[in-house]
Order: sequence, then C-alpha cells, then structure tokens
Amino acid sequence: MPEQSVVAGWIAVDWGTTHLRAWAMQGSTVLAQADSADGMAKLDRDGFEPALMHLVNDWLGCDPTPVLACGMVGARQGWVEAPYHTVPAKPLGAPPIPAPANDPRIAPLIIPGLKQDTPADVMRGEETQIAGFLALNKDWDGILCLPGTHTKWVHVSAGEIVSFQTFMTGELFALLGARSVLRHSLAGDGWDEPAFAAALNETRSRPERLAGLLFSIRAEDLLHNQPAAIARSRLSGLLIGAELAAARAYWLGQQVAVIGSAQTTKPYATALDLQGVPATVADGTRMTLAGLTAAYRSLKGSV
Amino acid sequence: MPEQSVVAGWIAVDWGTTHLRAWAMQGSTVLAQADSADGMAKLDRDGFEPALMHLVNDWLGCDPTPVLACGMVGARQGWVEAPYHTVPAKPLGAPPIPAPANDPRIAPLIIPGLKQDTPADVMRGEETQIAGFLALNKDWDGILCLPGTHTKWVHVSAGEIVSFQTFMTGELFALLGARSVLRHSLAGDGWDEPAFAAALNETRSRPERLAGLLFSIRAEDLLHNQPAAIARSRLSGLLIGAELAAARAYWLGQQVAVIGSAQTTKPYATALDLQGVPATVADGTRMTLAGLTAAYRSLKGSV
Repeated sequence: MPEQSVVAGWIAVDWGTTHLRAWAMQGSTVLAQADSADGMAKLDRDGFEPALMHLVNDWLGCDPTPVLACGMVGARQGWVEAPYHTVPAKPLGAPPIPAPANDPRIAPLIIPGLKQDTPADVMRGEETQIAGFLALNKDWDGILCLPGTHTKWVHVSAGEIVSFQTFMTGELFALLGARSVLRHSLAGDGWDEPAFAAALNETRSRPERLAGLLFSIRAEDLLHNQPAAIARSRLSGLLIGAELAAARAYWLGQQVAVIGSAQTTKPYATALDLQGVPATVADGTRMTLAGLTAAYRSLKGSV
Repeated sequence: MPEQSVVAGWIAVDWGTTHLRAWAMQGSTVLAQADSADGMAKLDRDGFEPALMHLVNDWLGCDPTPVLACGMVGARQGWVEAPYHTVPAKPLGAPPIPAPANDPRIAPLIIPGLKQDTPADVMRGEETQIAGFLALNKDWDGILCLPGTHTKWVHVSAGEIVSFQTFMTGELFALLGARSVLRHSLAGDGWDEPAFAAALNETRSRPERLAGLLFSIRAEDLLHNQPAAIARSRLSGLLIGAELAAARAYWLGQQVAVIGSAQTTKPYATALDLQGVPATVADGTRMTLAGLTAAYRSLKGSV
C-alpha cells in the first residue's frame, strides 16, 4: 500500500550543524516529518537545496511552498547568511531572509540569529525555540536555560530577549568524555545521582576547583576502581556546577524554564532544584515547531 | 663514511604515551640519541621490546646492557606494570621493575610512578624529572610545577614528594583548540602577551568565570573579528588563570621551579611572574636524563 500523499501548506525546518529536520505543516498541524544527517557542517553552498529537496520533494504541490528554516543554515557558511539581529530584541524581531532556490516549488526563508555586542555572544536556532516558548506561555518573564552543545542562559522580559550568555558545557563534556584521558574511565551508560549531586555541589560552591578535580576522575579509577557510572555523573556534575556558579546572576531568585530534550534538560533541572530553584521543563523540538509556526504566522500576517 | 660505532654503558629511556626517546650513556655522558613515535598507546605488550631494539640495537655490546626507562611504559597497559609507589616518598624511592626481554643483550628496568591516595592522584615520568631536579639542586625545598598535557604541581620537602595535584590544562587547551567550535577562531601560530595576561587575570581572580568566557572567544571572532593570535593567547590565559586559582595553595609565597620544554614552561613562568612569584625554569629533557642517571647510579650502588 503506497504511503498516503501529503501536500504541505508550509514546511518547517530545523537545520543545525549536524542535522536537518523537516516537517510538512498545515497551519500548526504536523502532517509528516523527515530528517537526515545533512547538517550545515557537511554541505557547501550548493548542497543545501538538494539536501532539503531530498526530504520534502513529496510534500510539494504546484504553488511555491513557504519553507521556514532556523539554525546554522543561516550562518556565514550556510545556505545564505541571515545576519544576526542585535539584542535587546524580540526573538523573531528581524524578518527572515530568502535563500536562493532553483526549484520554483519552494520559497525558502531563513530566520536570523541574535547577537549581543557586549559581552560578545551569538545564538542561531535558540531564538526560534524562545519564540515558541513565549508563544505558548504568554507574558512569561524570567530566565530560559537551553542546554545543549552550547548552553544558553537567556533573560526574557516583556517579550524581549534582554541579554544572554553561552556556556560550552555540553561540548566540554563530549570532548572530555570521548577524547581526553578521562574516556578510559567513563565507558558505558550508567548514571549515579548522588555522585552527580556531590560533584555539582563541589564546583557550584568552589568553582575554582574544577580544573583540579577533572583529573581526579581518572585517578579515582586507577587507584580505587571508581565505577564508570560514578565517573560520568561526576564529570557532568563538576561541569554543570561550574556553569551554575558562573551563571548565578541568571538563575538566583528567578523564574526559570529549561528547554531541550529529555536527556539534556534532566541534569539541569535537577541541578537547579538542588539550589532551591524549581524549573519548568519544555520540550525543545516542540518549542522549535511552535517558534517556526509563529514565524510563519507573522509572515502571513505581514503579506 | 659509516657512523662512528657507539657502545653504551647503559641506556636511558623516556617512554611516554605518544613518544619513545633513548640515549646511549656512559656514566652521565650522552654518547648518542634516538627517538621514534612508538609511544605506549600504540604498542601491545609484545611490541615494546622490538620498538626499543629498533632504536638501541647498534649501541649494544656483548654483555647485558642496563636499560633504565621511565614514563607510561610502566602503566598497566605498558611493557610491564611498575606499580605506583605511595607519597610521601623520595621520587625514586621504589626499586625499578625488570621488564621481560628475549634479547639477552638488554636488561630493561622500569621506574615506578607515584600515587597519592587522598586526594587520588598519580604520576608516571614526572617522578624521574623531579629526581633529576633534586640531583642537580641539592637540598631544594619548595614547589615544582611540571606543565604538559597533564600539569603537575608538586610539594617537595627534605628530598621527598609530600603531595601533588594534576591539572588537565594542557589537554583542555589541545582539545578546545583543535576539536571544539573555538578551533575556527584559533588558526595560526601567533601570540599576544597582553591578551594572555588579561585573560589570565580574569580567571585567576574570578575562576568561576571560565565556563562563561570560553565561548566569548568564538563570539568575539564572529562579531568583532578578534585575531587568532589574541584568541589563542586568551584561551591559554583563561585556562592557566583558572589553574593558578585552583593551585593557589601550592604557589602562594613559595619557592617555585617550572620544569618542561621552552614552549610549555614559558606561559607558566610568565603567569607566576605576574603574581609576583619569580620561578626558576629547568629544561624537562635535561631533568629526565639527570633523573635516569640518578636511578642508574643508585642501581649500581645497590648491586
């Protein structure tokens, strides 16, 4: 039996460094979904349209279909550069930038990222998740934490992004866990909550200890056979604890929501809870879709 | 003209994770030197003897030649495990361990590393450099800093290693510079001393800022075209500043010597100088040779 045919009213695209995800949409309803590993990093400028068409070709009707895309696809090395918009700003405050396409059945538009001049910082993709969160939580003021390879702490007030700061915690965890000497002590998948909490507390209260505590993960394995689950939980706790110490001005006494996948949000929500900050958790993919939908609506409204 | 033939009285070997270096010795005089990339990490147990023979074969006479080796060659995955000796201890306080050899012309001996139970820590190879430094600097008391992939801070008193702590600063610099998003902003070789000093001061005085300042290296490039030399110097300064903050109990008000290559010791000596701690600098290879020579002498003395 052939797959039921889908014609998208518009197409939502989340296009990051290492992945490409597309949804066939009708209004805010998802009709179909497809993804591939054609992230921005492995494509040259001419590769973007074919990579997209590979996923969405079957969803296209005769009229040009709007394609709303967010993420690294708008970087200088992306399909077309969508220059950063400067904060303070609404997350979708700048109009999307058209990308060149040969196929007349698509009309691709790329959502610009945001920049902060001082301290220098940038985001691409998170602005769309933030827009989605604000579309679903009207009049929400407070702090959004978006954990990932590069975690963002974002101060939102009156519908605007006031300021934000990026931490490389996720990338550090991945590099140290997979490529440093610590990799020998982290094999496997287990997790140890008390070890996470203890390590978190060590660097949250004394962040200067991070540099000296990392190698102890290896030494505790060599000398005292520390299990890998404890090692992995300690590495996560040490890094997130140091991040919490540095981001203290963001979360202390604030209303906080954590946006991301179940896997990335859990240690952050736990860590905040341990500081007496109960955090709302919101699914990252859902926020991306809600943000792209908000962008599509404002586009239609403006035509 | 054939190379002049050399017969070694004994052979000194520095055998690390990624390199193998051998010297043909007569007493404390170097007769010849050879090296290869046959580090511990790429050899299985049966590979050590051939890798060594490849370098030293031409130096061997008829009698068994003592081969004194230090470094990761004595790790569990090495030629033979030379179990850690526990501090407080003299750097060469434990006797070297014989390694099995098929060729009767060599008598290989491996110098044990040192361990500290609490806080858990280990070293292999640095104990020999420390022994070399102490052989050349009689009655020296104070702090030795041995920068490298894993920097060691070592408290020496009355000829013994009292305590030590390892920092992964060198490995972090290498991973962040070559494999993280920062690599795009660090290309090239330049150096900027004021940028190094400023970054050092930021994390030395406020180590909790490290986690948040790393990504700013990327953002300053994207937004303000920060030159790669400044980016690289800032990354080094931020990491060493955080290390100095954590190792403060080691160096504050102490006599300090920094042991290593010209490249690794320079930023540490500069950083200590900026804290008002003038540090002696000693060449790492020379200390290794002096330490292996001290081990050879104590071996001969004990026969």
